[in-house]
Amino acid sequence: MKFASFNVGDSAHYGPVSGEVIHAVPDRMRGQFPDLKSAIAGQALEQVAAAALRDGTPYPLASLQYAPVIANPGKIICVGLNYRAHGDETGRPDYPALFVRFADTQIGHGENLTLSAESAMFDFEGELAVVIGTPGHGIAEAAALDHIAGYACYNDATMRDWQRHSSQYTAGKNFPGTGAFGPFLVTADEVGDPSQLAIATRVDGAVMQSASTADMLFSVRDIIAYVSRFTPLAAGDVLVTGTPAGAGAGRKPPVFLTAGMVVEVEIERVGLLRNVVAAVQ
Amino acid sequence: MKFASFNVGDSAHYGPVSGEVIHAVPDRMRGQFPDLKSAIAGQALEQVAAAALRDGTPYPLASLQYAPVIANPGKIICVGLNYRAHGDETGRPDYPALFVRFADTQIGHGENLTLSAESAMFDFEGELAVVIGTPGHGIAEAAALDHIAGYACYNDATMRDWQRHSSQYTAGKNFPGTGAFGPFLVTADEVGDPSQLAIATRVDGAVMQSASTADMLFSVRDIIAYVSRFTPLAAGDVLVTGTPAGAGAGRKPPVFLTAGMVVEVEIERVGLLRNVVAAVQ
Repeated sequence: MKFASFNVGDSAHYGPVSGEVIHAVPDRMRGQFPDLKSAIAGQALEQVAAAALRDGTPYPLASLQYAPVIANPGKIICVGLNYRAHGDETGRPDYPALFVRFADTQIGHGENLTLSAESAMFDFEGELAVVIGTPGHGIAEAAALDHIAGYACYNDATMRDWQRHSSQYTAGKNFPGTGAFGPFLVTADEVGDPSQLAIATRVDGAVMQSASTADMLFSVRDIIAYVSRFTPLAAGDVLVTGTPAGAGAGRKPPVFLTAGMVVEVEIERVGLLRNVVAAVQ
Repeated sequence: MKFASFNVGDSAHYGPVSGEVIHAVPDRMRGQFPDLKSAIAGQALEQVAAAALRDGTPYPLASLQYAPVIANPGKIICVGLNYRAHGDETGRPDYPALFVRFADTQIGHGENLTLSAESAMFDFEGELAVVIGTPGHGIAEAAALDHIAGYACYNDATMRDWQRHSSQYTAGKNFPGTGAFGPFLVTADEVGDPSQLAIATRVDGAVMQSASTADMLFSVRDIIAYVSRFTPLAAGDVLVTGTPAGAGAGRKPPVFLTAGMVVEVEIERVGLLRNVVAAVQ
């Protein structure tokens, strides 16, 4: 199944996708499960989907105002550069480099990525996002995939100059309007093995990043096991699993985002996330 | 004024301190202001304090079960090493190094700091915590102190080995039971200038860190101004402003925390935070 979070005017909704239509979870169920995170936590995805498909208001995807797949994750934990470069045989570091993104940096599919007057180096990073379903602390690698509700595309867009202000990435990763997350949560059963997915990022149609999740230094299993050794993971928590080679700052010449550019992150079986870059508000 | 958050059985309360007693904010006001964060956001500290002192249930401080001052901050942003070492004239870096702590790592005054079987290097870091009162984005340095609700002591306790797993501190800063925050929120008017406060950390009575907030590389004003350039600050957000020289890992020989040790962080006009180290659960 696929789910999206979306807005109708000022009102937040979510529901399952069927063909070219999304069916809003009916109000009577939203007391108990007000948003996608709570439905995941209540292990109620099938229940809300059945109710929505039966008598939820249908909205055409073509005109949907998407919200971030999970608008209010308790934790968004991101992995620094996590892909083997082409032909690089140097092995991997001992541990993944992790940083945190705040929920208020997130946008949905079709919402604008936002430039800031504070930065001249707005960069893209296409990534596979993992949404936790079953809570856990100290999750074994062998059981890690069982804790996943589903997957989505993520653009972990970065103010590269601010990322380099100090040793810690926090500042460069937390400007508003930089964490694009969508369009859908695709449930784990539909995606299958997360370590064999083609992933690509395009800017104005030109391919900037193209890789396979098979090239991750730390696999989805590795990341879940490592992170859950120090912090308990809860339903709706998001792990953003790192970006392949080809982001703008490392290119010759560098490519940074400017107003009007279109950035697409496409992941096999997970979807196509598309956002336009908007000028400073 | 001073406020604390505390538990009575399973029930969370907060209220103003008067002498050796805390007065719980009455239930009738907790519909509107359920916790200290919401009272700060509602600019209602004086209002809830007046009601609590008039007819809130009094609890003696001596037997209080303290909770973290703010149990559920939207953001906890911490500054890496932020004090001039004794006699060091090398100047400061251009920008503060910032990392994030999750709210579920926090404990209150008197609760246990928790060792982990995952780490052999549990270290202490006494710090001044700033609690935001008035929201802001792009706050000018000159106005920064006007955005502060108050101050508290913080022990930004760290699994030093995990902090060093990669370039990013996230893992070492996010074990449960490591962020001690209390005992009180002391309102900004009572503290006055935050750049002239004596700060000390003691382990089993021995002074390990002793400095003045005058020795900060980035002052409280600097930190608020810098952070709010990239992320909007909200009421109840917490800035943990860095630790002086003398933490355990840098000592010769190193000093790490073991079960039964008592760690105290004392800050002039802000209070004395005391926690005992507990064995792995």
